[in-house]
Amino acid sequence: MFITFEGADGCGKTTQLKLAAQYLESQGKQVVVTREPGSTGLGVQLREILLGYDGEVSSRAEQFLFLADRAQHVDMVIKPALAAGKIVLCDRHTDSTTAYQGYGRGLNLERIDYLNNITTDGLKPDLTIVFDVDIETSAARVGAQKDRMESAGTGFFNRVRQGYLEIAKREPSRVKVVDAARSIEQVHSDITSIIGKSLN
Amino acid sequence: MFITFEGADGCGKTTQLKLAAQYLESQGKQVVVTREPGSTGLGVQLREILLGYDGEVSSRAEQFLFLADRAQHVDMVIKPALAAGKIVLCDRHTDSTTAYQGYGRGLNLERIDYLNNITTDGLKPDLTIVFDVDIETSAARVGAQKDRMESAGTGFFNRVRQGYLEIAKREPSRVKVVDAARSIEQVHSDITSIIGKSLN
Repeated sequence: MFITFEGADGCGKTTQLKLAAQYLESQGKQVVVTREPGSTGLGVQLREILLGYDGEVSSRAEQFLFLADRAQHVDMVIKPALAAGKIVLCDRHTDSTTAYQGYGRGLNLERIDYLNNITTDGLKPDLTIVFDVDIETSAARVGAQKDRMESAGTGFFNRVRQGYLEIAKREPSRVKVVDAARSIEQVHSDITSIIGKSLN
Repeated sequence: MFITFEGADGCGKTTQLKLAAQYLESQGKQVVVTREPGSTGLGVQLREILLGYDGEVSSRAEQFLFLADRAQHVDMVIKPALAAGKIVLCDRHTDSTTAYQGYGRGLNLERIDYLNNITTDGLKPDLTIVFDVDIETSAARVGAQKDRMESAGTGFFNRVRQGYLEIAKREPSRVKVVDAARSIEQVHSDITSIIGKSLN
């Protein structure tokens, strides 16, 4: 079973992913926790290139490097784990590209769908949990990074948020939206309930 | 003006590209000579990663790394040179992907067209010269590398060759086929004539 955790920075998904992994392990499941971008050794090297490159990397080249990272992640981490019967919990995946690049930056959604499908070799998450949160809660949680978020803009944040909700509308059986402005315990309780239903 | 040189290994295109550059410079043109993959600093670093990576890089990830290299090459080398009014001579470009991956390896041609178009941001060569050569001539010319070619197989070589001819059939105004089994001087004479017509 392949489960992805999606949402804006500060939505609490990384915390919830760890709690979900602990919960599943306590139920005797084998769990692999991973994230995008940069989960494989190749991804780490690509990120180093992007950060340390002595010159300008074109935004289109950068986009393909992220796609290479995802292809490697799917082929070398996610698919082998699924084939071994493990539950894979992934912090961000294809819906991040759709929400951020598509809805957030206004890039062509059909092209993003096409590229997402190629990079995953057609693999789709069995379940995606979208952590929905308003900008005030998100900004309060990210704290030190608040400037970065404000510089990206309220408009951008809201387009990304709306993008995630659109994705959930398009694929209601795969994508579940959780109100992530509540306490960690309340949200965790929703997550275990949603995952529990999918496992049965 | 953007001119690409295409054909199998041993077809003589690299030699002809140098001669064509000398010819154009003797005519007072400003020429940029480049090649794919790996012409930019980023491409060189990506190639180093592929060669030195301590683990397996999935073939799909590798494909996206080559696409990243091409996007960078188009954005940082080819487009700026064209914008500055220079003639760009490029040793291999999108038609190599179509001929080798599509016709040679049997990957989906529509997908390759789609990805080619994204990596080039819609830029098409004004002129493409395909150096057509039979396998015996090619093998004789590559000499030391003959084993590698034979291991790839006669069938593969012929599919790639046929692929290039199909591309020329599809786009006769862009793609010109030259019989590359003849002498360097004879082929060069054809090239200057073809390029001369395109320049006028």
